[in-house]
Amino acid sequence: MRTLGLDLGGTKIAAAVVEDGVIVARQQVATPQTGYQDVLRALVAVSESLLSGYPDVTAIGIGSPGPLDLKEGRVLFAPNIPGMQNAPIVRDLQVATTCRVVLENDANAAGFAEHKFGAAKDLESSMYITISTGIGGGLFIDDQVVHGARGIAGEVGHMTLMPNGPLCGCGHYGCWEAMASGRAIARDASFSYGESLTTKEVFARAEQGDVKALKVVDNAARLSGIALASLLKVFDPSGFVIGGGMSQVGAFYIDKIQAAADEFSVGFPDVVIRLAELGTDAGVIGAASVAV
Amino acid sequence: MRTLGLDLGGTKIAAAVVEDGVIVARQQVATPQTGYQDVLRALVAVSESLLSGYPDVTAIGIGSPGPLDLKEGRVLFAPNIPGMQNAPIVRDLQVATTCRVVLENDANAAGFAEHKFGAAKDLESSMYITISTGIGGGLFIDDQVVHGARGIAGEVGHMTLMPNGPLCGCGHYGCWEAMASGRAIARDASFSYGESLTTKEVFARAEQGDVKALKVVDNAARLSGIALASLLKVFDPSGFVIGGGMSQVGAFYIDKIQAAADEFSVGFPDVVIRLAELGTDAGVIGAASVAV
Repeated sequence: MRTLGLDLGGTKIAAAVVEDGVIVARQQVATPQTGYQDVLRALVAVSESLLSGYPDVTAIGIGSPGPLDLKEGRVLFAPNIPGMQNAPIVRDLQVATTCRVVLENDANAAGFAEHKFGAAKDLESSMYITISTGIGGGLFIDDQVVHGARGIAGEVGHMTLMPNGPLCGCGHYGCWEAMASGRAIARDASFSYGESLTTKEVFARAEQGDVKALKVVDNAARLSGIALASLLKVFDPSGFVIGGGMSQVGAFYIDKIQAAADEFSVGFPDVVIRLAELGTDAGVIGAASVAV
Repeated sequence: MRTLGLDLGGTKIAAAVVEDGVIVARQQVATPQTGYQDVLRALVAVSESLLSGYPDVTAIGIGSPGPLDLKEGRVLFAPNIPGMQNAPIVRDLQVATTCRVVLENDANAAGFAEHKFGAAKDLESSMYITISTGIGGGLFIDDQVVHGARGIAGEVGHMTLMPNGPLCGCGHYGCWEAMASGRAIARDASFSYGESLTTKEVFARAEQGDVKALKVVDNAARLSGIALASLLKVFDPSGFVIGGGMSQVGAFYIDKIQAAADEFSVGFPDVVIRLAELGTDAGVIGAASVAV
């Protein structure tokens, strides 16, 4: 069954007609920075353009940053898109396109794509963890996204790893995201070096064996491994898929996470960790797939 | 539908015929301390005695301490029952009683009873947390126990709350159980007072306003609240049910947990906490219910 996927990001909107996890046609436009009505117009335009070539497509899935109200089909707030507040995106897209529209959290959409068609396609259940500027995730059992009672299941980046740890963007202290995200690594290294460094620069120095940078990267990877070991004990997924910007560092980084996860799960089943496979297409493939 | 529930504990075996969560007949015997074959004989005897009065019962559920191999129907190891090792309890009970037999982890069984018939009976999903000597739990969505890929989902007591924390019985450091269980409270208070105290004595002193005891209890409750806030973000259950010995302390203790959970979840949905309602019957009711 062909469906249309929309991946709404802070800078661009990716759109694609997808069949069984394969993109058969795609378009991309910039995300308007001038409020919800303009974002909606852009979404409708790109949808109609693709739909004109695929009249059999009658369902649209849209992945959006959140928080979302999945029941009401609203984007409550999108921190990186100006003017996206309490936006009734499902209703408005349905009216404009006459398609059935399904809204999904962007991390859940990307994770669902990996679960169904990517790194976890052979696994019964998986947990997707995206480690970039922030840390997010999603839980999947069989063909289902686990949303939880209020739609926030999978917000694993805000698990508390250290009650007296550094302040997180969410307002709490010691969240995984506050201790091991890309932003946390840049913060810790900048403090240690006494100069402002990007996450990329920290990893470059660490891979060259620089002791200060290695210490920061090792600490973040260790905390991420500990978090995965905890999640194993809570949810016991068949495997974890690591996506997001920091997964692109590859084995140098993932091996450190695996080592810490193994250390903190001796006596429990294996922590199976895989790198995401679908790259930046995961969002649009997953969005299309939740509409199937 | 009437089924038979067996709750296998370290000191006693509780057995009951249960219909829609209500016990219609029950028996209790001591758990033999002389090896698996004697435990099996006791289970068969109590089952046959109850089944003779209820010939319509054709299914038995058994709740057992673990670790278990749910697929093979084996108790791999039961720390508190001598000689229970790699015991093929499902096969042996099926042969002896000619009933269909379902094995379940004891915490999952008790939690399932609370989910279906007790404190969470009006909730779509719930997470059961038993805080006694140790800390265990279970996850429930609709009519399902979430087992995870290898049957260890819900082993929340071994989430890491503090990577450099005290040693846990599982061999790792800083587990929730190592920091906030009944045993941890007794340990911390005994250290603080310089004399050996039971958990009960610590709570008695804390309720009288003794500063040292209060500090230990407050710290444990705070850590449990932080753990619940983390679990909210991972799984977003409609509510949490707190059972086990320490839930019997009641509001004095639960209110402290609720306060910490609220503090660490500002900006997220509410952490709904309820006290278990079925008391010591939860195990046998839940065991009978998983066989339905």
